[in-house]
Amino acid sequence: MKKLINDPEAVVAESVAGFAAAHADLVTSSADPQTLFVSRAGGAVSGKVGIVSGGGSGHEPLHAGFVGRGMLDAAVPGAVFTSPTPDPIQAATQAADGGAGVLHIVKNYTGDVLNFETAAELAELEDIPVKSVVITDDVAVEDSLYTAGRRGVAGTVLVEKIAGAAAERGDDLETVHRIATRVAQNVRSMGVALSACTVPHAGKPSFDLSPQEIELGIGIHGEPGRERVPAAGANEITERLLAAVTDDLTIADGDQVVLLVNGMGGTPLSELYIVYGHARQVLEARGVTVARSLVGDYVTSLEMQGASISVLRLEEELLELFDAPVVTPALRWGA
Amino acid sequence: MKKLINDPEAVVAESVAGFAAAHADLVTSSADPQTLFVSRAGGAVSGKVGIVSGGGSGHEPLHAGFVGRGMLDAAVPGAVFTSPTPDPIQAATQAADGGAGVLHIVKNYTGDVLNFETAAELAELEDIPVKSVVITDDVAVEDSLYTAGRRGVAGTVLVEKIAGAAAERGDDLETVHRIATRVAQNVRSMGVALSACTVPHAGKPSFDLSPQEIELGIGIHGEPGRERVPAAGANEITERLLAAVTDDLTIADGDQVVLLVNGMGGTPLSELYIVYGHARQVLEARGVTVARSLVGDYVTSLEMQGASISVLRLEEELLELFDAPVVTPALRWGA
Repeated sequence: MKKLINDPEAVVAESVAGFAAAHADLVTSSADPQTLFVSRAGGAVSGKVGIVSGGGSGHEPLHAGFVGRGMLDAAVPGAVFTSPTPDPIQAATQAADGGAGVLHIVKNYTGDVLNFETAAELAELEDIPVKSVVITDDVAVEDSLYTAGRRGVAGTVLVEKIAGAAAERGDDLETVHRIATRVAQNVRSMGVALSACTVPHAGKPSFDLSPQEIELGIGIHGEPGRERVPAAGANEITERLLAAVTDDLTIADGDQVVLLVNGMGGTPLSELYIVYGHARQVLEARGVTVARSLVGDYVTSLEMQGASISVLRLEEELLELFDAPVVTPALRWGA
Repeated sequence: MKKLINDPEAVVAESVAGFAAAHADLVTSSADPQTLFVSRAGGAVSGKVGIVSGGGSGHEPLHAGFVGRGMLDAAVPGAVFTSPTPDPIQAATQAADGGAGVLHIVKNYTGDVLNFETAAELAELEDIPVKSVVITDDVAVEDSLYTAGRRGVAGTVLVEKIAGAAAERGDDLETVHRIATRVAQNVRSMGVALSACTVPHAGKPSFDLSPQEIELGIGIHGEPGRERVPAAGANEITERLLAAVTDDLTIADGDQVVLLVNGMGGTPLSELYIVYGHARQVLEARGVTVARSLVGDYVTSLEMQGASISVLRLEEELLELFDAPVVTPALRWGA
């Protein structure tokens, strides 16, 4: 294992410290390492619904990279591929509370769901109303390592963006929760791995993949996907991922979508654009309008080579909220 | 070799097509594949100095990712790790010309320098004044594979950003050239590779590195660096890279700098922040102020694992120009 790290046990703390120093104009990290979280510089916005997300580290820029105006108020990084405990989630919830309640955005992994639930109960004991949305956008498999039901993957970014915009414009907790739920219901994703990744404290790759094989439907922790198939061309892989996504979403002629092609961390950007270009062509040939696009590393799996395709069907006001200004370390436009 | 590509010979064309489709609000690609370049949507800005860069592909988001308001007017992608020929550079120069002349920003590789020179001569035959700045920020080695003198690497992004801002505010060609030259003179970089990358049409890694070794001073095409050393911790690697950079730049107590920690393409973002955090501490301990920071994949080598550290000493108005608004696919702030 060769990595640009010092102590495998210190990876998250050192990385978050560097992150907070690099983006001190936008974010701050908590002082107590026992309740580590990242929050908006300047603290909670009075009267605004707070948005908190979090989960195991190793998926950067998710979640801390999306803390800032128009997106998250706080993010809680666990150990690599390990849910944060309730204490830092509760502390982040308090930090994000501006008096209008807090929305938790939770990827559907058993540990995350339980720990966010416990943190929500603790927060409510302190009179902070909390609502939660659980993200289950990965169409690859039902139930999996770490998960009952579908996993939450790259579509999480779109929920965070749009819910964040709703909170920023002043929507109340019930409305922000309703909008986040609508995004979660209208986004689907599926990924492919060309290579595995290595968790620092494990020291060896999380799975083996032969030089001739790829794994379709891979999870963002390297959990098994739908099937291992012989390595194929980008267009064929794109078509298989996209078909799984759009079939599940029952995309139809005339739909308007956001297309997100997400890199897993070790994939050249040029390859993501090849996947994007073909996915867009396939969608357009079906009469679907690609209204907005994101191409890059948003929800990664350390240095895994691979990509995922997410499609969000744009209903009602979702496009307006997607377009709203966002100022975070990893996503920034319009302001 | 497993890659998300179709035909190795079509990688650049397909990737640029996807890129242009994804960012059609900001950029457009030329119609003729024989003179492939990417330019600002809306065409040249009348009365503004045009800024053109380019070089071999495989370093994305460099250069096309930096086309847009406040940075490049056009970028010319060659084949992977291969200089573009004079024809597309000339065509890009014409497209970028708003009547105030064009600046060429050229990384110091023999092919790039020759082909940009030829293109500049062709443009001048058409009465487009062209000035050039050659980037030589890599302190690792003098002369190298593909290069006489020092190589141009990640510092190029800072030249493009600041020269672009000068052009955008209306500086004339002589002034933009002078500012670009000042940035080039005040930026130094050095990189490290933990693993090699594979050029698509070559089909095998460009060099071999044992599981116990890293290469200090690596070039962005995998050209040999200063030395191969046993894999070490991130802090030790950071200190070695930074010492080489700051010694060469003769950084002194009281200096104000931009610190750029650049990923080579296959490095987790979390690791880049670990390197950044330590580099910043070392600089601050020496009395240097890190005024601005960039951390991420800006000048990559396909899927190579590794990073580079660049330091730009901020003289006079360079900070103001760095902070000026920029709206490109890969760098965006202030507007």
